[in-house]
Amino acid sequence: MGSLPVDTLQPLDPDTFAADSSAVIDFLAGYYRDVDKYPVRAASLEPGRLRKLLPDSAPEWGEPMDAILDDVRRDVLPGLTHWQSPSFFAYFPMNASSAAFAGEMLSVGLNVVPFVWVASPAAAELETVVMDWMAKLIGLPDRFLFGGGGGGVLQGSTCEAVVCTLAAARDRAMARIGIGHEGILKLVVYASDQTHATSQKGARLVGIPPANFRVIPTSSADGYALAASSVHAEVERDVARGLVPLYLCATVGTTGLGAVDPVRELGDVARRHGMWLHVDAAYAGAAAVCAEHRGHLADGAELADSVSMNPHKWFLTNMDCCCLWVADPTHLTAALSTDPEYLRNVDGVAGGEKLAGDGAVDYKDWQISLSRRFRAMKLWFVLRRYGAEGIRGYIRGHVAMAEWFERAVGGDGRFEVVAKRRFSLVCFRLRGDGEEVDGVNRELLAAVNGSGRAFMTHFVVEGKFVIRLAVGGAMTEMRHVRDAWELVQRTADQLLLERRRR
Amino acid sequence: MGSLPVDTLQPLDPDTFAADSSAVIDFLAGYYRDVDKYPVRAASLEPGRLRKLLPDSAPEWGEPMDAILDDVRRDVLPGLTHWQSPSFFAYFPMNASSAAFAGEMLSVGLNVVPFVWVASPAAAELETVVMDWMAKLIGLPDRFLFGGGGGGVLQGSTCEAVVCTLAAARDRAMARIGIGHEGILKLVVYASDQTHATSQKGARLVGIPPANFRVIPTSSADGYALAASSVHAEVERDVARGLVPLYLCATVGTTGLGAVDPVRELGDVARRHGMWLHVDAAYAGAAAVCAEHRGHLADGAELADSVSMNPHKWFLTNMDCCCLWVADPTHLTAALSTDPEYLRNVDGVAGGEKLAGDGAVDYKDWQISLSRRFRAMKLWFVLRRYGAEGIRGYIRGHVAMAEWFERAVGGDGRFEVVAKRRFSLVCFRLRGDGEEVDGVNRELLAAVNGSGRAFMTHFVVEGKFVIRLAVGGAMTEMRHVRDAWELVQRTADQLLLERRRR
Repeated sequence: MGSLPVDTLQPLDPDTFAADSSAVIDFLAGYYRDVDKYPVRAASLEPGRLRKLLPDSAPEWGEPMDAILDDVRRDVLPGLTHWQSPSFFAYFPMNASSAAFAGEMLSVGLNVVPFVWVASPAAAELETVVMDWMAKLIGLPDRFLFGGGGGGVLQGSTCEAVVCTLAAARDRAMARIGIGHEGILKLVVYASDQTHATSQKGARLVGIPPANFRVIPTSSADGYALAASSVHAEVERDVARGLVPLYLCATVGTTGLGAVDPVRELGDVARRHGMWLHVDAAYAGAAAVCAEHRGHLADGAELADSVSMNPHKWFLTNMDCCCLWVADPTHLTAALSTDPEYLRNVDGVAGGEKLAGDGAVDYKDWQISLSRRFRAMKLWFVLRRYGAEGIRGYIRGHVAMAEWFERAVGGDGRFEVVAKRRFSLVCFRLRGDGEEVDGVNRELLAAVNGSGRAFMTHFVVEGKFVIRLAVGGAMTEMRHVRDAWELVQRTADQLLLERRRR
Repeated sequence: MGSLPVDTLQPLDPDTFAADSSAVIDFLAGYYRDVDKYPVRAASLEPGRLRKLLPDSAPEWGEPMDAILDDVRRDVLPGLTHWQSPSFFAYFPMNASSAAFAGEMLSVGLNVVPFVWVASPAAAELETVVMDWMAKLIGLPDRFLFGGGGGGVLQGSTCEAVVCTLAAARDRAMARIGIGHEGILKLVVYASDQTHATSQKGARLVGIPPANFRVIPTSSADGYALAASSVHAEVERDVARGLVPLYLCATVGTTGLGAVDPVRELGDVARRHGMWLHVDAAYAGAAAVCAEHRGHLADGAELADSVSMNPHKWFLTNMDCCCLWVADPTHLTAALSTDPEYLRNVDGVAGGEKLAGDGAVDYKDWQISLSRRFRAMKLWFVLRRYGAEGIRGYIRGHVAMAEWFERAVGGDGRFEVVAKRRFSLVCFRLRGDGEEVDGVNRELLAAVNGSGRAFMTHFVVEGKFVIRLAVGGAMTEMRHVRDAWELVQRTADQLLLERRRR
């Protein structure tokens, strides 16, 4: 067949748009209604299942929306792990909400690209506004606000935030060393054995020698927090060898166990040695909207160069949304700015850093990519639709559920809570020593997940296999947590009985 | 006020979800109906305008959706540049479509995070399927398909694709040099003066010495293409100085002028010197769905190590969506993989590279970030809903409109087309020499944009100020291009008249 006549396709015809979109809304409303009936982890774990079901090539001719949605229902859904299931307790939950969804739809539909201020002034400014709002809500010092000389940007992920701040720190340090690019060989990054893998990946990405990444051990005695004294000792050793301390990552709420590093003490070490301190509060930063959970992050945050947290984890904001604040944006823009002619503005309107106090920010210079989505809209919708008090209640509800689970585990003599619960993550296991008990815990987790009635993940600490239950789903209620505990208990009963019979 | 009772918020209550979402659908359908009535570039360019309109802090209590949408209409819309306006001809258009919107909504609503295969097998596999479909559609050789030993991944932007491939190339080269991390000081990246700023930013980001980034001049004689002989000469000089050629970026459809680098010839140079060849077809890659536009990319693509193109530019896919294919994924995963315990799978189901042939890919190791959105859904929806032939017709329509505009410019003796039109970008200006004529062209562009009836951007080549008209909006029809030309002519009439009067 030859080419279609010009203008045949009307990709944004309002009526088709409304009809197709409404079909998806119905689909999703039905999905939310039924999501607790699906096995939480993908029903089918046969590799290649979906590839076999789909044709080898794209269709030549367009198809109606209903046919596509039928295929989603039949072919795709059984191969999805249902992150919005109320019984999803794995990794850290990535919660969704109607408000974030509405804001995201609006942003996707408007499809503006606020890379330079003039390319959509209100989009850039709304981002500066919500970043200031968020900083105040979680109790960050004024130096991270636009009015206080700092500022914030919405990244896609903590990894992007870490890469950008590492690059900023790297260039600042190399300028100080003053021996040219060879300086990069001397730079050292510090993290703990509990720090997210993102730090190591990011350090490698920005060209820090892999041998200059220090993984400092933590212990149960310190609650798996990074001890400032250990960092100090490591740094002294490196300095004595002629190396240059570059970057220290402090985590509030580690991924494995929810541990909290002492921000103030680490900040003191960082300051003393001219290091960049980044505070990664990806998960637990959300809890800082509540006064009773704020201390970990707020105490010492004024010593940090940058702070990040992910509204897409536990702040009701659909993927992807990571808040990054910096105390001095010029370090960021020095490392990341570009100024090609095709992005300049000929209309006599100044954009860019000079006007950052007004929110006239060229955000392309605050991130890895040039192009960017209008992410501020969805976070603004969440804050407006639920209000700070609504979100506090939401967080407190999850923490209460985790507390209940922790007490339940403590009340069953066969189990132990492995690390102090903080926020909404409970790490537990069947008691005992040696490899055998690890095997039993592994089997327990596999059986729980295999039942389809809950999904949890694991961690290994000091050689022990630990089961993680992370509460944080938008639809999770106390009854789901109770069901999960009953499931764990019943599954353990059965497993232990079978073991005795063997 | 104290904390709210647990479970007060129901963020995914299906009825609220449907009501809030439907309000946004209505809003957007109305927006598409009226978008041609808005000034294309933001009506207000007063820095800080939106910040002044909004409160200093987030609200304490939630608000109804209608109130929020009213604020969007009143406060935000006047500060947006309307990228979906049919008269948006600036930068490169970022087109939207009902199908991509529907797919994106589904992905946002399901909110699954397919970073490892088991975290949503069907999401990872759908991505491998659509990447193979896309590779075939634009005529890439089999080596970029999963079945052919290669594979593809959806990134957020070309910059991410460039950073990932630079990191892969860097680690491959350093392993070859074999002198440890010091090798990074010897690595050299090559691009032309027309290559996107992304290459330079990316090279800096991954730690390549800024002094080792070569910007090779192009000329009008070569149509602003990067001549293989120039690269060869530069490379020989660097090799003689003990440096190591690392990475060469060939562009099909440059941002400034739409120039096309000779992929095969550059590939030969790259092969001879062991360089990584990346082909950046961010914009023009979409045109390769049409046989008549395929040659530029297809001829020599088998010599490339990686190829990227952005469906979010001219392939009906809302932001963000960048296809990256690599011939050998192990280079990518060697540079980008992490394997922390909390992401391992205890259930006896293997994920990861070993099974990539089945689509069981752990995509976290193919990109910068760990977390990721389910981007494949929207691209799949575009391909299904419109079919290859529908998309070809769409592309051909835009090319025909650009051809018309080019002829119109050629037919008015006061104007000239500055670079050979390829695809849908026309670069033109009022004729003449010297700075004065640049000033007139600047004024012309400022007046056109200031009218609110079209939005174009500019470029500077060989000292000449050039106006760029890029056709590619989802709602752009021939009449909008005709109107734009009439606007340019009328504005020029007026400007030239005023100048004569001065």
